[in-house]
Amino acid sequence: MKRKIYLEDTPLKEARKKLLDAVEFQPRLERIPTVDALGRVTAEPIFAAVSMPNYHASAMDGIAVKASRTYSAHEKNPLQLKRGADFQIIDTGDPIPDEFDAVIMIEHVHMIDDETCEILEPASPWQHIRQIGEDVVAGELIVPANHVLRPVDLGALLAGGVVEVSVIVRPKVAIIPTGTELVSPRNRIDRGEIPEFNGTVFAAYLQSWGADPVYKGIVEDDYQKIKNAVLEAVAACDIVLLNAGSSAGSEDFTVHVVQELGEVMTHGVATRPGKPVVIGKVNGKPVIGLPGYPVSAYLALEWFARPLVHEFLGISELERPKVKATLGRRVVSVMGAEEFVRMAIGAVAGKFIANPLTRAAGVTMSMVRADGLLRIPAASLGYEQGEQVEIELYRPLQQIEKTMVFAGSHDMTLDLLSAAIHKADPARFMSSAHVGSMGGILAIRKGEAHAAGVHLLDEQSGEYNITFAQKYLPDTPFVLVNLVHRQQGWIVPAGNPFHIQKINDLNRAGLTYINRQRGAGTRLLFDYLLKQAGMQPEDIYGYNREDFSHLSVAAAVAGGTADCGLGVLSAAQAFGLDFVPVAEERYDLLMTKEFYQSEAGQDLLSVMTSEEFRQQVEALGGYSCRDTGKVIFESN
Amino acid sequence: MKRKIYLEDTPLKEARKKLLDAVEFQPRLERIPTVDALGRVTAEPIFAAVSMPNYHASAMDGIAVKASRTYSAHEKNPLQLKRGADFQIIDTGDPIPDEFDAVIMIEHVHMIDDETCEILEPASPWQHIRQIGEDVVAGELIVPANHVLRPVDLGALLAGGVVEVSVIVRPKVAIIPTGTELVSPRNRIDRGEIPEFNGTVFAAYLQSWGADPVYKGIVEDDYQKIKNAVLEAVAACDIVLLNAGSSAGSEDFTVHVVQELGEVMTHGVATRPGKPVVIGKVNGKPVIGLPGYPVSAYLALEWFARPLVHEFLGISELERPKVKATLGRRVVSVMGAEEFVRMAIGAVAGKFIANPLTRAAGVTMSMVRADGLLRIPAASLGYEQGEQVEIELYRPLQQIEKTMVFAGSHDMTLDLLSAAIHKADPARFMSSAHVGSMGGILAIRKGEAHAAGVHLLDEQSGEYNITFAQKYLPDTPFVLVNLVHRQQGWIVPAGNPFHIQKINDLNRAGLTYINRQRGAGTRLLFDYLLKQAGMQPEDIYGYNREDFSHLSVAAAVAGGTADCGLGVLSAAQAFGLDFVPVAEERYDLLMTKEFYQSEAGQDLLSVMTSEEFRQQVEALGGYSCRDTGKVIFESN
Repeated sequence: MKRKIYLEDTPLKEARKKLLDAVEFQPRLERIPTVDALGRVTAEPIFAAVSMPNYHASAMDGIAVKASRTYSAHEKNPLQLKRGADFQIIDTGDPIPDEFDAVIMIEHVHMIDDETCEILEPASPWQHIRQIGEDVVAGELIVPANHVLRPVDLGALLAGGVVEVSVIVRPKVAIIPTGTELVSPRNRIDRGEIPEFNGTVFAAYLQSWGADPVYKGIVEDDYQKIKNAVLEAVAACDIVLLNAGSSAGSEDFTVHVVQELGEVMTHGVATRPGKPVVIGKVNGKPVIGLPGYPVSAYLALEWFARPLVHEFLGISELERPKVKATLGRRVVSVMGAEEFVRMAIGAVAGKFIANPLTRAAGVTMSMVRADGLLRIPAASLGYEQGEQVEIELYRPLQQIEKTMVFAGSHDMTLDLLSAAIHKADPARFMSSAHVGSMGGILAIRKGEAHAAGVHLLDEQSGEYNITFAQKYLPDTPFVLVNLVHRQQGWIVPAGNPFHIQKINDLNRAGLTYINRQRGAGTRLLFDYLLKQAGMQPEDIYGYNREDFSHLSVAAAVAGGTADCGLGVLSAAQAFGLDFVPVAEERYDLLMTKEFYQSEAGQDLLSVMTSEEFRQQVEALGGYSCRDTGKVIFESN
Repeated sequence: MKRKIYLEDTPLKEARKKLLDAVEFQPRLERIPTVDALGRVTAEPIFAAVSMPNYHASAMDGIAVKASRTYSAHEKNPLQLKRGADFQIIDTGDPIPDEFDAVIMIEHVHMIDDETCEILEPASPWQHIRQIGEDVVAGELIVPANHVLRPVDLGALLAGGVVEVSVIVRPKVAIIPTGTELVSPRNRIDRGEIPEFNGTVFAAYLQSWGADPVYKGIVEDDYQKIKNAVLEAVAACDIVLLNAGSSAGSEDFTVHVVQELGEVMTHGVATRPGKPVVIGKVNGKPVIGLPGYPVSAYLALEWFARPLVHEFLGISELERPKVKATLGRRVVSVMGAEEFVRMAIGAVAGKFIANPLTRAAGVTMSMVRADGLLRIPAASLGYEQGEQVEIELYRPLQQIEKTMVFAGSHDMTLDLLSAAIHKADPARFMSSAHVGSMGGILAIRKGEAHAAGVHLLDEQSGEYNITFAQKYLPDTPFVLVNLVHRQQGWIVPAGNPFHIQKINDLNRAGLTYINRQRGAGTRLLFDYLLKQAGMQPEDIYGYNREDFSHLSVAAAVAGGTADCGLGVLSAAQAFGLDFVPVAEERYDLLMTKEFYQSEAGQDLLSVMTSEEFRQQVEALGGYSCRDTGKVIFESN
């Protein structure tokens, strides 16, 4: 084992400054055709070579005349002009013949015959003539150096006779994924294998920042092989990125390799996530070791690789737009580390409400779902519920404003609904947070969501949802609309090896159950079944192990860490598991009356009740749409 | 001549709706590797094929244990574990062996020897384990249909085992430039030739909107040839754009061709600029005739081609961000046409001030310079100075906030200064409006500019600038800093064929002068010279023809429409003209004291006084930097 190295806690800003101060790029130039230069960065100020137009051109369809010859024309004293000597017919863009100096619009010309015309008012000199250089004048600055060329810039350059431009060569950035467990992405992954996808994400970001990513193949966790890969990359590229192995574990080689080949400037930044970063220099080239967890990796890429690319190109970084939002939940933070929390933002009833997503660094989907990022300074303990915070946006505010925010119980038909809403109107989006049925009701009460998926069984009445909504929304006018009826059942390994049919079967020794979290409708259903059978939670091994969705429960059964869970058929099918039906339940959408009656609410309803959605849902199996879209209950 | 056709005045919104209602696209799908799918649009919702991780993985470096075996461990009662039977050493990402169900961090493990370790506290089941599906769970929706794929989406797709995606094929958009005067862009343009650059701009915009532009060659103004080009394009592409010939003149064939081959839906929209647009359909494919003037063309492209591309891809259009700004000048508009005015925006003393740029539709450079676009509804007569207006942004607000706004007299060293400022700090930009010296002083007074270039000769004192600044800025503390001394002189054709040496020579019969606008320092200098010579404006033929910059004056002389103008050496040189020195004058920058003392002001000063800037200026010829950066005058 290598000697133990401990990570530092260098503040992010300091680490970045050290890095940028330490590198000195020598950007290379290339001359390329202007027509291919969109998005490229100019290497020098560019001046017009010619004027546009480079001759006096007619700005109208009409006749060219000598203005001084027309001064006597008057409404009461029409002036006749002879073709050739006095005028010439001219179209927009035609050169003005040398002997003329004005244009009269065709609408103001009365043609008497092919050779003669009549005008009723004089022309003033240079009227309706585009003079030389009106558009671009030779010698004029078109764009400065270090300018990112836009479509209109290309037009002005070509107009000014600049058909080739000097641009800065895109910096080559090597991406070296390391890890013995890594395999190329594929649709069948064996135990112990991890598909290498961070490199693709890095390449895509780098490309969008103006760099030229160079993807090196996967390198296994071997000191010598990693060292060779770094040496080769440093020779060929401007910036080198290593992925994973940047921490201080026994197989984390990055820091040692950089130390041997060059200099380590920083090992460990005071951030969460993103701490295990190695920043160094080899042969004057920056070498960055990025953490392996996807979220940490992408944040650190943006913190360190992006400013390097911009520095190379000599352009300034644009910050993401920000929005002020109200925190729907408390967000705690520890002192001493700058924290970055992925947030979901909803525009509900005219204000922006933000809620933290999972903080686990390994959850790529949380980056896909995030609307923005909340930064908590190192000296802060976090923010309270209801506080106004500033959030850096990952999605355009216009999209967030048009997003229907669902919170509540998880159901797989919500994914279909989300897709159908966006398809029906590409301007609309739907996000959903799986917080359980009770969590959904509370989100509606706090004004954090437009709709909540609920399936809460009232043990007393045997009725779903209504009593709960009435209890928790005494002052909020609400509507319950049915989304689906669905089968809940035991999710068990294929072939049902433990012969589970009813709840009493779970009491058997050696059987492990996986439960859902408190507040979930499925949890309530399980508790109801327990009670009916006269059993106690203690009778169920695993009652206290909670998971947050049907799919996670199915995944646990598929992975062998549980022998049974309660959930929906489609989740069992996704993992090739067996399913033993237990009960049919009603799954409704709870909405405020205000949202229900709004344009968005009515659009939602028409998508739900469309034939296409019904077919997709029923194809999942275990669902019935017999009441979909029906108003189950409406409060006063 | 074709029969006369008159343009309609269809409101923009109506024209767009008619177009979108009339086309029905049948988007084609293609399956491509996920790694190549950045920016592409999904054709269907995409669900995870596998879970990530697909096995229980260690989240830490440490030892894997069976939690139930550790319950007796306590600080006062250390528990010894045997390798193999009780624990196994494990690294982050390693699979958890079947017989274990928890991980203890290596920091909390005391290794006694290679085979034995000791722990002081128990592990809870599943601690420090990344469970199956923590990142992505099989069956989960990753992205909906009609979603533009971002870097993180690619990561989540690959993590979920999706290595190929169905995306919508980019719509093919044919670009057909028409015009007998058109030539391919080149650095030498003959009289009567216009370089074809609109097509390049179209292609660049279309590409950035997600389309696949297909540039057809230039087609001359010939009915049959245009017809054939349209037929061919309609057969091969999804959308067809014709450029120029969309109006109602004798050589405007677009409307006739579309009428013959299909259906014209709209000819002429009620906008300024952009009116002459042809919107039609041939074989079910939209065919758009765009105006020839660059500004009109690019606006109309955005109005009509962009929504078609988005419709094809099934994605929503993002509006540009907007900002509220105060109008520095009145902007008048005629009733009945929706007007679009390019605006320059300055962030001066904490507020945004917007001023209209030229409204001529032919000035590409005004699109390059524009910070945003002001829309004036058809029913409005415009806006008054000082009114708050909303402006659609062409540049990020962050850049506008970091832009030094220059207004005042035109000088060619300002272009060099602009480039040098951006080079010294890529986050800084400089814009300059050529409004003459007096205009510059007024801009400083109104808080519309940071600095004004002035060279105003006081006829009484023979001194430059000070008395004017004192007179017009009685209440504003200001500083005058010298930028350059420069030669003014007669700009005359090469070889000085009219032997112009002094102002009296301009009195000769047949000689045409070109003047500068009122308020320009060069105009004042000319008036001063006139007065000294005892001459009157009437003695100068062309005194009333005003142009707005040194380069425009030089362009007029080069184009033969004037025989002489007053201006700087570098302008004469840009056109290969001769120059007869008349006077050296002092060109200062006028700034408020507040700006002068600000960080931006001091950065400006350090760029001005750099050796690099001095060398560039003196290389132009006709300039001296002997006092550059010197404070000439400071008010109280």
